[in-house]
Amino acid sequence: MGHALLYAQSGGVTSVINQSAAGVIEACRKYPQIERVLAGHNGIVGILQETLIDCTGLNTEPLLQSPGGYFGSCRFKLPDPEDPEHQVYLARILEVMAAHQVRYFLYNGGGDSQDTLLKVSKYAQRQGYPLQCIGIPKTIDNDLPGTDTSPGYGSAAKYLAVSTAETALDLSAMQASSTKVFIFEVMGRAAGWLAAATALASEIRADLGPDIILFPEVPFVGSRFLERCQEVVDKKGFCFVVLAEGLEDLEHHTLAKVRDRDPFGHPQLGGAAPVLANYVRKHLGLKTHWAVSDYLQRCARHLAAQVDVDQARTVGAQAVHWALEQRDQIMVTIQRIQDEPYLWNTGEIPLYQVANQERLLPIEFISADGYGITAEAHRFLLPLIAGEAYPKYRDGLPIYANYNGPYIPKRLPAFTATSG
Amino acid sequence: MGHALLYAQSGGVTSVINQSAAGVIEACRKYPQIERVLAGHNGIVGILQETLIDCTGLNTEPLLQSPGGYFGSCRFKLPDPEDPEHQVYLARILEVMAAHQVRYFLYNGGGDSQDTLLKVSKYAQRQGYPLQCIGIPKTIDNDLPGTDTSPGYGSAAKYLAVSTAETALDLSAMQASSTKVFIFEVMGRAAGWLAAATALASEIRADLGPDIILFPEVPFVGSRFLERCQEVVDKKGFCFVVLAEGLEDLEHHTLAKVRDRDPFGHPQLGGAAPVLANYVRKHLGLKTHWAVSDYLQRCARHLAAQVDVDQARTVGAQAVHWALEQRDQIMVTIQRIQDEPYLWNTGEIPLYQVANQERLLPIEFISADGYGITAEAHRFLLPLIAGEAYPKYRDGLPIYANYNGPYIPKRLPAFTATSG
Repeated sequence: MGHALLYAQSGGVTSVINQSAAGVIEACRKYPQIERVLAGHNGIVGILQETLIDCTGLNTEPLLQSPGGYFGSCRFKLPDPEDPEHQVYLARILEVMAAHQVRYFLYNGGGDSQDTLLKVSKYAQRQGYPLQCIGIPKTIDNDLPGTDTSPGYGSAAKYLAVSTAETALDLSAMQASSTKVFIFEVMGRAAGWLAAATALASEIRADLGPDIILFPEVPFVGSRFLERCQEVVDKKGFCFVVLAEGLEDLEHHTLAKVRDRDPFGHPQLGGAAPVLANYVRKHLGLKTHWAVSDYLQRCARHLAAQVDVDQARTVGAQAVHWALEQRDQIMVTIQRIQDEPYLWNTGEIPLYQVANQERLLPIEFISADGYGITAEAHRFLLPLIAGEAYPKYRDGLPIYANYNGPYIPKRLPAFTATSG
Repeated sequence: MGHALLYAQSGGVTSVINQSAAGVIEACRKYPQIERVLAGHNGIVGILQETLIDCTGLNTEPLLQSPGGYFGSCRFKLPDPEDPEHQVYLARILEVMAAHQVRYFLYNGGGDSQDTLLKVSKYAQRQGYPLQCIGIPKTIDNDLPGTDTSPGYGSAAKYLAVSTAETALDLSAMQASSTKVFIFEVMGRAAGWLAAATALASEIRADLGPDIILFPEVPFVGSRFLERCQEVVDKKGFCFVVLAEGLEDLEHHTLAKVRDRDPFGHPQLGGAAPVLANYVRKHLGLKTHWAVSDYLQRCARHLAAQVDVDQARTVGAQAVHWALEQRDQIMVTIQRIQDEPYLWNTGEIPLYQVANQERLLPIEFISADGYGITAEAHRFLLPLIAGEAYPKYRDGLPIYANYNGPYIPKRLPAFTATSG
């Protein structure tokens, strides 16, 4: 039996992560030395459980249409290196790969996932197991270092910018006798890239953009915010506030109550908008409405950006090419050649420079008052939402799908870790 | 000077109310007896203030593209008939109409707005002022009686159904190691039409629809809900809950009021979704996320339904035809001829039968367990979201606009009511 390439999706899904999967599967067909293309069901969890999907002959059409993780994704952290279970997990991963003749491993995720990939790669090296490990970038947060943008961001950014303009038109029509302050909560625990994208609405017309953006990078000062909010209402009739979920005050307290922590110890936030709305109502006595898009913003495939779709597919294909060139421990990146017209190419970054790193919004992208973005940021962000890549519809609904089995026969006994 | 037709927008705006405005303006061009087409700025408020827009030669292209109320809308209720101010307001409205030779008045709104229109019409009759008053339906709530649907509903329904399917795919991909319960709050204080529309996502594939819909028509019973929620999670891996904002318990308390009585002294945050999410976490201990679309759902022109766009434009034009046929005190309706293929025509209903009436979801549309919709409801709702009517884009953003002046010269002194 010949060699296999193993692909898996990891972390929060996006509108276009399945484009990367399609890029991988299609590119593999150019290499006769790849006999089988496998996908882990639910990311590395499916690899541990040996729940694998044979994608060799898979029709990629549904992948090009559908948001979410077609093969299933996961929030999974390997046990800590000091934990004896750490080796047990890594050994199991390699055992599964060996049982299925895997020689190429492509992991499609954000910073935490690239860290997992690096650990697997180093373990394989120590064991003398030949394995090419290439990372494929993905995250709506756009916080991966070394890349112009992360696939998934452009589409989420477009959705948020368009939603901002639409809601601004709604508010504008109603402000004389209804809502004066609207608060739109967007994702972003530490990095304000998604919050910044809402400002692109002002490209349509200046007054359709947000009036105040509360970035997670800028500490919240209540009195200053209230003053600005009232000023804008007095001048414009209404104030559109964008609020990043991770907003903190000067003492590093988040507005949102920390509900939970994910397996990486990141706080699970959401719900800052109602807190801020209450604050506005209490102090300014203005009619306030708020919206929280939550997961809707990361899977709004119906409004995907064509450039994001193209980049996602290309980084998937590039990962295959590099794996077959015996490259290792790198993540594919997107390199900007110029802003207008936007030209880009693929590049690379060593995994150790990606793992667990967060790229925040550069300070020169935030306006002097801390409540908006600079002209430089507009120039940088606008090309990332270009083009409309609509899915196909039937009877008024998009033709979406995800994988529903079967899985390939298992060759190993079930995995029973003592913890995890 | 010849006669004028006056059009105004009223109540919460929609993705397609401007289509109705375009229908009105375009139809007027067929009637030489209409010398001028006027629009009130901010609905009837602009009429009281004599802030009027001359639309006679207006390019309707931006209206066909843009959500929100192009001319501005309002939440305005005439003073109570027992209040002496009531007559003052009606007299002013007629005075403004007379000053501008208005003989036709078309008011584009929901039940409250049609009630206002009827009052204006009756007052004009009593004063012997010749005025044809025709209502144009509009509301995303779909709660107007006598019409198959209300323009605005189909597009909001499509947005919610597509968002539901997209988020269900996201949840499905992540459920093995992340969120188990997702709560999606939609509009609907009394009527569950928007909540019902989310069930259309199951037309894509059964498991992409909501698992539990909490209709405002069905009292919330916490223990029963928790039991069902846990059952669904056990069986499917995750539970997608749709929650209408107006949900009440058996004692007719809304969820938000339940929060008011929170013994822990937490502030009332507003929004039923975070309240229900907390309830699920507390009682089932499951990881929960929630979204509140709020205004986003009523202005998502980027995902408008073609049939809704067509109907909105047609009811606008029909109102003009009837006004010119000297019809009076009626609202244009949409009459269904058949389900599949969906055929419809315009009809009419007397204003007195519309004013302040609310059409709830019929009992035969709600499944026996109260948590879903019936096959009959699916058949009825599906044609209303048909077709994709995308706006034009430039640089990745839709070409949206609203009216920014000028206004026609005032002919009357300013209006100074003693109250209101």
